[in-house]
Amino acid sequence: MSIHNRQWLLVNRPQGWAQESNFKLVETELPLLQDGQLVVKVQYLSLDPYMRSRMNESKSYAPAQPLNQVMSGGCVGEIVESKNVNFRTGEMVVGMGGWQEYFVSRGEGLMKVDTRALSPTVYLGCVGMPGVTAWYGLTRICQPKAGDTLVVSAASGAVGSVVGQLARILGCRVVGIAGGQSKCSFVVTELGFDQCVDYKAGSFLDEFEKATPSGIDVLFENVGGALLDAAFARMNDFGRVAVCGLIAGYNGQDISLKHFGSVLTHRLKVRGFIISDHMEVWPQALKELSGYVIQGKIKYHDTIAQGIESAARAFIGLLKGENLGKQLVKM
Amino acid sequence: MSIHNRQWLLVNRPQGWAQESNFKLVETELPLLQDGQLVVKVQYLSLDPYMRSRMNESKSYAPAQPLNQVMSGGCVGEIVESKNVNFRTGEMVVGMGGWQEYFVSRGEGLMKVDTRALSPTVYLGCVGMPGVTAWYGLTRICQPKAGDTLVVSAASGAVGSVVGQLARILGCRVVGIAGGQSKCSFVVTELGFDQCVDYKAGSFLDEFEKATPSGIDVLFENVGGALLDAAFARMNDFGRVAVCGLIAGYNGQDISLKHFGSVLTHRLKVRGFIISDHMEVWPQALKELSGYVIQGKIKYHDTIAQGIESAARAFIGLLKGENLGKQLVKM
Repeated sequence: MSIHNRQWLLVNRPQGWAQESNFKLVETELPLLQDGQLVVKVQYLSLDPYMRSRMNESKSYAPAQPLNQVMSGGCVGEIVESKNVNFRTGEMVVGMGGWQEYFVSRGEGLMKVDTRALSPTVYLGCVGMPGVTAWYGLTRICQPKAGDTLVVSAASGAVGSVVGQLARILGCRVVGIAGGQSKCSFVVTELGFDQCVDYKAGSFLDEFEKATPSGIDVLFENVGGALLDAAFARMNDFGRVAVCGLIAGYNGQDISLKHFGSVLTHRLKVRGFIISDHMEVWPQALKELSGYVIQGKIKYHDTIAQGIESAARAFIGLLKGENLGKQLVKM
Repeated sequence: MSIHNRQWLLVNRPQGWAQESNFKLVETELPLLQDGQLVVKVQYLSLDPYMRSRMNESKSYAPAQPLNQVMSGGCVGEIVESKNVNFRTGEMVVGMGGWQEYFVSRGEGLMKVDTRALSPTVYLGCVGMPGVTAWYGLTRICQPKAGDTLVVSAASGAVGSVVGQLARILGCRVVGIAGGQSKCSFVVTELGFDQCVDYKAGSFLDEFEKATPSGIDVLFENVGGALLDAAFARMNDFGRVAVCGLIAGYNGQDISLKHFGSVLTHRLKVRGFIISDHMEVWPQALKELSGYVIQGKIKYHDTIAQGIESAARAFIGLLKGENLGKQLVKM
């Protein structure tokens, strides 16, 4: 059976903001399946901020995305053909399939998932890489105590939304930062954060101060730049800062920090991390996260772009904060 | 016996650079000694960069120095009168006596020291607060491994000189940063660092790159600003950064950081500290440090200003980097 496939390639590297012209949608045929291989028909593709870093040629935490190859990315999908004894047709799997409608795999790195109790999209969000990222940064780096004030930026995003809900479960007072009133309302009303401050409002610094009257004990940073500076200026002694993302600078913007001195003055612990360095925590984290989702203690929202054609545009929208919750593409 | 005393008071707070006019030298009589008290005749006063932070009114890691009171500071001296059963006349002690020729104490916080094997000045330097600071930051935060490249700024100073020598003992390749060729020569020739880069030379960034061809695994930061930025830009994955001082900003200068993103890209651990939070390590640290000094494995240099009159001027010189090694005042 010959399968017609569509794929997004990275064809040139962005100068500043990523643009649709950096990508190209191409059509190919899947190669004939060899022994040990299987084919996954992708249902949902995950779009994530880290992908922007990989579009650069320079050294980053992830290897650069090679030019003229399929953009890499996480997917959930169904096995439609298998010559691998460990996988059967009809099984649902998660893996790094890339920005394409089908992918061929030998099974390495594929994880079977149960989509009866949970939506398949969850495995790309709060019970997937973003959820484990939130879990690791919060429990292993931030080490929150009940009563701590925790601040998380990009609070309505795939990672931030889980950070805040986990921190509430642990007894923290949780303050989100998000862009725009509708995101802030979602964060408080739907996700149950104590407060959320709109960084796009002209009164951000005042509102942020009012929302953190006892300072900040724990900061989970996804944005960087001015938001990180505002938080550094309000850290309490012995505060912990997990640096998970600096999306404010991913398109080459200046994200200089004025208040780094707070690290000394308040004896902060600051640590950057990327979840792929910590594969050993995934089983425990996924177990806890799926339990919380099933119990309704962790809620989520997906923003779903329709069709592979929409992937590049949706990705650029993600970098501009146009999504609410997890950004996906439905194939 | 009435004792005539001279003291330096802080009489106003600096705007920008500290100046001699912020201080005033006054003469007083020591009060009559009460039961439980003793008098120390100060031999040496320690001058340290942290004192500049205390001159500000704003919140810092140490409480602000009150106006019109004796500047606080560490001293070593001899007990010349005692109505305290635990201390005898003639004993040498170290304590926070302040910028004055004599001080009265009830003995709390005083540590008796043996000045037969070691010079009394050592207890204000490499076997005192600066030495313990170096020991804690290096062993507890930087956690260096043999073969690591360690960079320390203010390398010829009281803290930096001990950091580099301890790191050499632990098998690191040690690169110092210091201001001026004579300091750099001292650091390499006398202290045994592998290299030292002169930040005042026009070619600093080039020389720094050449001195760290394999990047930086461990950074012990005393300066901040442009030097910290240069080091952040060269950190290796999973590097550790101890933030001990940011003297480049103590007089109000802009020490914005451009390369904070390295914390994420290279998954750095960055931690600020102040040694007074960690009194529990002092006995172990002092024991190790005094052993190394006696064995000649840790060398030191004192810059000694003569007479209490010179204290304010010497302190401003310290902030400008005019000293080599530990800055003291001989009373």
